Amino acid sequence: MKYRVEYDTLGEVKVPIDKYWGAQTQRSLENFRIGPEASMPIDLIRAYGYVKKAAAYTNHQLGILSLDKRDLISAVCDEIIQGYLDEHFPLVIWQTGSGTQTNMNVNEVISNRAHVLKGNELGKGVPFLHSNDDVNKSQSSNDTFPTAMHIAAHIKLVNLTIPSIKSLRNALDDKAKALSDVIKVGRTHLMDATPLTMGQEFTGYVSQLDHAIQAIHNSLSHLREIALGGTAVGTGLNAPANYGEIVTDYISKFTGLSFRSAENKFEAIASHDALVEAHGALKQTAVSLLKIANDIRLMASGPRAGIGELIIPSNEPGSSIMPGKVNPTQVEALSMVCAQVMGNDTTITIAGSSGQFELNVFKPLIIYNFLQSAQLLGDACVSFTKNCVEGLRPDKARIKGYLDNSLMLITALNTHIGYEKSAEIAKKAYAENKSLRESALELGYVSQEEFDKWVDPKKMI
Amino acid sequence: MKYRVEYDTLGEVKVPIDKYWGAQTQRSLENFRIGPEASMPIDLIRAYGYVKKAAAYTNHQLGILSLDKRDLISAVCDEIIQGYLDEHFPLVIWQTGSGTQTNMNVNEVISNRAHVLKGNELGKGVPFLHSNDDVNKSQSSNDTFPTAMHIAAHIKLVNLTIPSIKSLRNALDDKAKALSDVIKVGRTHLMDATPLTMGQEFTGYVSQLDHAIQAIHNSLSHLREIALGGTAVGTGLNAPANYGEIVTDYISKFTGLSFRSAENKFEAIASHDALVEAHGALKQTAVSLLKIANDIRLMASGPRAGIGELIIPSNEPGSSIMPGKVNPTQVEALSMVCAQVMGNDTTITIAGSSGQFELNVFKPLIIYNFLQSAQLLGDACVSFTKNCVEGLRPDKARIKGYLDNSLMLITALNTHIGYEKSAEIAKKAYAENKSLRESALELGYVSQEEFDKWVDPKKMI
Amino acid sequence: MKYRVEYDTLGEVKVPIDKYWGAQTQRSLENFRIGPEASMPIDLIRAYGYVKKAAAYTNHQLGILSLDKRDLISAVCDEIIQGYLDEHFPLVIWQTGSGTQTNMNVNEVISNRAHVLKGNELGKGVPFLHSNDDVNKSQSSNDTFPTAMHIAAHIKLVNLTIPSIKSLRNALDDKAKALSDVIKVGRTHLMDATPLTMGQEFTGYVSQLDHAIQAIHNSLSHLREIALGGTAVGTGLNAPANYGEIVTDYISKFTGLSFRSAENKFEAIASHDALVEAHGALKQTAVSLLKIANDIRLMASGPRAGIGELIIPSNEPGSSIMPGKVNPTQVEALSMVCAQVMGNDTTITIAGSSGQFELNVFKPLIIYNFLQSAQLLGDACVSFTKNCVEGLRPDKARIKGYLDNSLMLITALNTHIGYEKSAEIAKKAYAENKSLRESALELGYVSQEEFDKWVDPKKMI
Amino acid sequence: MKYRVEYDTLGEVKVPIDKYWGAQTQRSLENFRIGPEASMPIDLIRAYGYVKKAAAYTNHQLGILSLDKRDLISAVCDEIIQGYLDEHFPLVIWQTGSGTQTNMNVNEVISNRAHVLKGNELGKGVPFLHSNDDVNKSQSSNDTFPTAMHIAAHIKLVNLTIPSIKSLRNALDDKAKALSDVIKVGRTHLMDATPLTMGQEFTGYVSQLDHAIQAIHNSLSHLREIALGGTAVGTGLNAPANYGEIVTDYISKFTGLSFRSAENKFEAIASHDALVEAHGALKQTAVSLLKIANDIRLMASGPRAGIGELIIPSNEPGSSIMPGKVNPTQVEALSMVCAQVMGNDTTITIAGSSGQFELNVFKPLIIYNFLQSAQLLGDACVSFTKNCVEGLRPDKARIKGYLDNSLMLITALNTHIGYEKSAEIAKKAYAENKSLRESALELGYVSQEEFDKWVDPKKMI
Repeated sequence: MKYRVEYDTLGEVKVPIDKYWGAQTQRSLENFRIGPEASMPIDLIRAYGYVKKAAAYTNHQLGILSLDKRDLISAVCDEIIQGYLDEHFPLVIWQTGSGTQTNMNVNEVISNRAHVLKGNELGKGVPFLHSNDDVNKSQSSNDTFPTAMHIAAHIKLVNLTIPSIKSLRNALDDKAKALSDVIKVGRTHLMDATPLTMGQEFTGYVSQLDHAIQAIHNSLSHLREIALGGTAVGTGLNAPANYGEIVTDYISKFTGLSFRSAENKFEAIASHDALVEAHGALKQTAVSLLKIANDIRLMASGPRAGIGELIIPSNEPGSSIMPGKVNPTQVEALSMVCAQVMGNDTTITIAGSSGQFELNVFKPLIIYNFLQSAQLLGDACVSFTKNCVEGLRPDKARIKGYLDNSLMLITALNTHIGYEKSAEIAKKAYAENKSLRESALELGYVSQEEFDKWVDPKKMI
Repeated sequence: MKYRVEYDTLGEVKVPIDKYWGAQTQRSLENFRIGPEASMPIDLIRAYGYVKKAAAYTNHQLGILSLDKRDLISAVCDEIIQGYLDEHFPLVIWQTGSGTQTNMNVNEVISNRAHVLKGNELGKGVPFLHSNDDVNKSQSSNDTFPTAMHIAAHIKLVNLTIPSIKSLRNALDDKAKALSDVIKVGRTHLMDATPLTMGQEFTGYVSQLDHAIQAIHNSLSHLREIALGGTAVGTGLNAPANYGEIVTDYISKFTGLSFRSAENKFEAIASHDALVEAHGALKQTAVSLLKIANDIRLMASGPRAGIGELIIPSNEPGSSIMPGKVNPTQVEALSMVCAQVMGNDTTITIAGSSGQFELNVFKPLIIYNFLQSAQLLGDACVSFTKNCVEGLRPDKARIKGYLDNSLMLITALNTHIGYEKSAEIAKKAYAENKSLRESALELGYVSQEEFDKWVDPKKMI
Repeated sequence: MKYRVEYDTLGEVKVPIDKYWGAQTQRSLENFRIGPEASMPIDLIRAYGYVKKAAAYTNHQLGILSLDKRDLISAVCDEIIQGYLDEHFPLVIWQTGSGTQTNMNVNEVISNRAHVLKGNELGKGVPFLHSNDDVNKSQSSNDTFPTAMHIAAHIKLVNLTIPSIKSLRNALDDKAKALSDVIKVGRTHLMDATPLTMGQEFTGYVSQLDHAIQAIHNSLSHLREIALGGTAVGTGLNAPANYGEIVTDYISKFTGLSFRSAENKFEAIASHDALVEAHGALKQTAVSLLKIANDIRLMASGPRAGIGELIIPSNEPGSSIMPGKVNPTQVEALSMVCAQVMGNDTTITIAGSSGQFELNVFKPLIIYNFLQSAQLLGDACVSFTKNCVEGLRPDKARIKGYLDNSLMLITALNTHIGYEKSAEIAKKAYAENKSLRESALELGYVSQEEFDKWVDPKKMI
Repeated sequence: MKYRVEYDTLGEVKVPIDKYWGAQTQRSLENFRIGPEASMPIDLIRAYGYVKKAAAYTNHQLGILSLDKRDLISAVCDEIIQGYLDEHFPLVIWQTGSGTQTNMNVNEVISNRAHVLKGNELGKGVPFLHSNDDVNKSQSSNDTFPTAMHIAAHIKLVNLTIPSIKSLRNALDDKAKALSDVIKVGRTHLMDATPLTMGQEFTGYVSQLDHAIQAIHNSLSHLREIALGGTAVGTGLNAPANYGEIVTDYISKFTGLSFRSAENKFEAIASHDALVEAHGALKQTAVSLLKIANDIRLMASGPRAGIGELIIPSNEPGSSIMPGKVNPTQVEALSMVCAQVMGNDTTITIAGSSGQFELNVFKPLIIYNFLQSAQLLGDACVSFTKNCVEGLRPDKARIKGYLDNSLMLITALNTHIGYEKSAEIAKKAYAENKSLRESALELGYVSQEEFDKWVDPKKMI
């Protein structure tokens, strides 16, 4: 590989000749060979594009950056946002916990790319934009990185996660309506219980997801707070007055989302409670989804030796050895995603609580886990909706067979003959493998007419 | 011990002669010898007092329970709520996952205690109130237990947890004001950084707790939903129409809190997302508190070989072997509580996701962990406030000493001479163990007057 | 309540007149009103009895404690070990993280109880045994508390947890043998698969528990290391040479277990990796148990609308509203215990990683969670064995019905006619609701004789 | 993109013309668009190379696969193992929970690549090797996937993780020796305590890692068990007798590691306790490492307003805004890795406990999290060793300054004048900001000579 020489305050460093990054990025690459390369989430890098662009506009507006410089920075940021420069961000999550090296990676790429955009050769001559004094002007890693975290998280939630959960919610709601007249055995403790409709069951899932979506929405308020303007420790040293408010307006404008300058910049830099809170809502969503997935898995079990109330779409051969097998693979993918999100929540909890004084230095870890959860939940909801829920069909014969046989219809007699006599009827039916009706009449606690009138699943739902 | 004989649908059981519980409670006692006795949270039992009282009022209002019975049930419920009957609830958490045995424990105690209140001898004669047909009328364990869970959780949060966090928040706010003119070295990466006031640092803590309180408040809405009226599986079988709404109004009236009948009873019985959500907020609070506690621990470290910026109250001899030692014991107690809450969150996450079909059978576990977290956080905040935060004092001499020596005041020169020359000054000062001023002048990058004008901590906060 | 006055280095304190504890215990009581009283595990207190007794014997043997004092300390320790003095240990978990206050509680009780044993009146006169200089001689909280932790943990594991898991393992093994000829449908992805015997299924559970027991045993080695002799920071200051080895021998002798002096006392005080490790094994056990419990829950589901391959004992009325219901309540109790242990593992992980320099100050939290897990797992295994596993019966008719209908017997044809033709047969049978035999013959891929010879469940296990 | 048409039992599928995968892989690609592409760990794919090669050798040895086919399969497997075919494995983690689609991906690639190796054109003609009947012969996804999991996990642990932890352990041990004469203030509760040497402190870290390595080693035994031979549900249907033993020997031979056929194949397929156990050991390691990392972070804090006992290497500019800052970035990277591993443990715990009947369907999730933890811990230990630990230097002047000032040297007086008088001396010194010596002499409890003789840090370590 060919190299050019770059410099930082520690001296010179060799950098691949065709890459826009500079000395500090290269040092990080060499000092942190941990896990696969370029693991820092690209969504975070693109969010940084908004940060640097907004900073440049603000600095110009406040009279401390020339129009030329503003527009040059902005041009490169647009390339970053559109993903044209992805290959120039090689750093890993497992670097400095402030993300400083990624901030410098962004600064360096902007400086060097601008140098080229101005017609110069990379590595030759003094860049027009200084990575610290211009690109990073009025900023610190400590306020830009959390800002990029919030932007990336917010975009992911509103563009992917929430709409995907909603699409699943709607598909379940459609099913609830379509299944509203399918009366089935209820099950509590996984044991036969009094009846309900399959539609009712599905409304429970819809309600869970409605609450989950609400919980995510509740968390957005905290996530909308932006640390920019706090610079190194929250005081705003080296940033002009009003910098925070103005730059936040630019970010809102450029992203089309509604951010606000954090009222307390010390919190916004030293803690990541906003992401802890939002991920808590994602974890709650995972809890809901796992319950829903498990129910569908159970209802689809069989086809002959399971519960078999639902038929799932056959999307692929299920087994490499058992011919003709159909498996609930979408349920499984979703379940694995849920378990991942639950573990990510532990990671974020530990990381979130480990700030010290003016800085939390688990930033890259937190945003990596957050974005993974948000992405996986979003994608999995879409896949589950399209490849499973939409194609679910009830096995009506089987459902009716269970219902007709159910001993728990006995519950309807409680209010007529009391709990104890009802129990006697049910136990006798179970022990002697009879129907409730037979057992009830044999015991003489009700007449034939009474039984037929009182024990009617249609009236029990 | 002396016994009397009680009966249930499985036959006869011996029960301690002086206890109000009946056959089903006794069976549970014998079948579940797991962990210490009577571990089912007493707050849950007392919440059940509200449930049964409201149920009796509703049944009476709807014309299916006599006034006599209503008033008798109500009288015993009041005793339960006031804690007079605690010793009659011997069951453990580790019973059936629906809490049925605790529901029956409550039903049996009400029936038997009423028998005695009416002047009868315990165990002699047929009770006036049947534990199932009267006390449990229009109810199931499946809707009463989650209702009691929500009531107990809500009461604990609003009566203890939230006010306690607020009291801590206010004490920190008072400190923030009192310390607003104490300029100190900031620390990022646990390394010296640009200055701020200790008051500013404390406002970060206040802001964290404000957000935590908001998050708990956000979760209350879901928690206010009441499952009653759903009976066994959510359909409301054996409960009159409008039962759910009316009984919820009674619960609101009796508790003085504002509950509402769950729009979707299927969700309210089959999942506990509301408690998952609320505990998520408690976990977030623990994350905030642990950060705050750790900062105070670090600032109080020393007295001579630590950071030593804060002096904590000396509440007890610190060591059994090292005379005169003062330890941050309140910080430690609070930290342990936070770690407990984080683990409880894992438990509740797993339990919350494990519902099947119409019932989640991890109910006792969930409410036990929830109430433990809510209680411990509440108590620990009070203790920490009173025994630590209120007595915190800054060691001003030490704080000033650090500030005067800090190399990071150099940051103020960035905007005047650029990042690279500033770095050169700081490194020289560090390497040669000099002051920034000496180093700056030696390098000749600024004049004496400039340095003194630009590098002024008071302007940097 | 009546009080007497006690003193410590901070001054005087009022103590309940009839309690043996002293000033430092009382201060802790007042300073840490967090959660229910006396929550510090009593098993830890009793383990402290061994610590103090062994310390007294060692100090005497090394010539720095008189025979009188040794015997007096020993006499009180025996009372502590036997549980006669439980009421004198009122402190909570949520105190100083070193457990110093509990160490002093023990020291004070020994001093005061000895005073009374010598015929004096509590609170009158100077105690013969000084709580620090005699009872705590050659010790610190920092080495005694972890020692008591290891003793308590080890005793609990070998006396309760391991034997209880073994009893469950043996009961499952007995079932495996008894069910060795019950051929049933296998299930993968919760879908019908090739057959196996129910006995084989149960051997899988036995194997899981064998590995779990082995894992717990592996962890005992680390747990046998004793910190005593390290005193305050691990150097052994104020303890005689060889103190650690001698006192460990006494502890081994008194407990009947085999401990050894930790080779590295710094680790033994500053970290609790031994308990992290041992609890990891308990968590692994919980993972195994939850899988086993869930399988039994699924097999017992029904009785009519579930899988219904197993019949569980009917230990209690299952429902307060549904007469005659039998629920897998033991499965549920065990499952809740498993979820608790998993959460406790998170707590212990966080706590275990939070030591600083020479001391981990999450000690009470760690031992509380550890002992809770060990106790609950032990108790739950016993309960599950006795009240569930021993009474399990297969529903042979149902099992045979599933087997006869299974489409996955087709797998036996793979090696004869290949995977693709086999799949065709299975799909046709499923789609047309036919038997495999009918479908195979209709497709003409095998003869009647071949089918009957090749597709024989008895040959497939 | 250009496509060719491939077939499976569900019909035809379009596949990119230059890729070796077939219909089932393509279906999975389309049905599971969850997260980034090709996320299934490549280490797992390579382990599958060993599985398929060993299977081919075994099938040949047992007379059911021709020599030609064996050698062809083997040739492709070698290419897989060497990483030449990585681009042909595009599937994600979030697929079917059995990993069937990845097993089929491997089968298809082997079949198609062999077709080409034999001189044919991809997609033209009938492949010599049938993906199911030849490549998957005597196997199922259900036994091959867990086998590949164990192989991949074992290789990663012995080739990377364990040696990396050992290298860190050795570097810490070297430091312990180099620092064995640096006497410093001990710290308990983060407060000044009795002295020890910095070398002693470091031996504690060494001891932690020795135990961690031992714990990982303990877990290898379970991990060496191989499921192959169990096929679909553990019975070994369609695999010849002795298949399991023979294939395991081949795997041992090809990998150079020592595996053994799982005694109980039912466990080996239905549960992943072996990986739960091994990851438990990794989590324990993370607990140890986080403690060590935090200590070093604290000791390196400063340079002027922190503890400052250690000087860390300056590997990069620390701050984008604060010139000259040196941050403990390696500590931070390692800390983030530890928090990730802790969260992964929660994920694996949940996933490991979620098996049902004959299969655990969280397999891809488990191995992904396991390998991530093993890789990150290994890499981070190397990075931390090389870029931080090896370059640590004590600031001897600072260390001595603390020691000379320490009040806790008073502890040495306990055995001479008792705890209470010692406490009095220490408190007076603290309150009046004096030295211990001054305070002691003023109080008159010791003579000058006694003080100098008794209070000598060198004798206290």
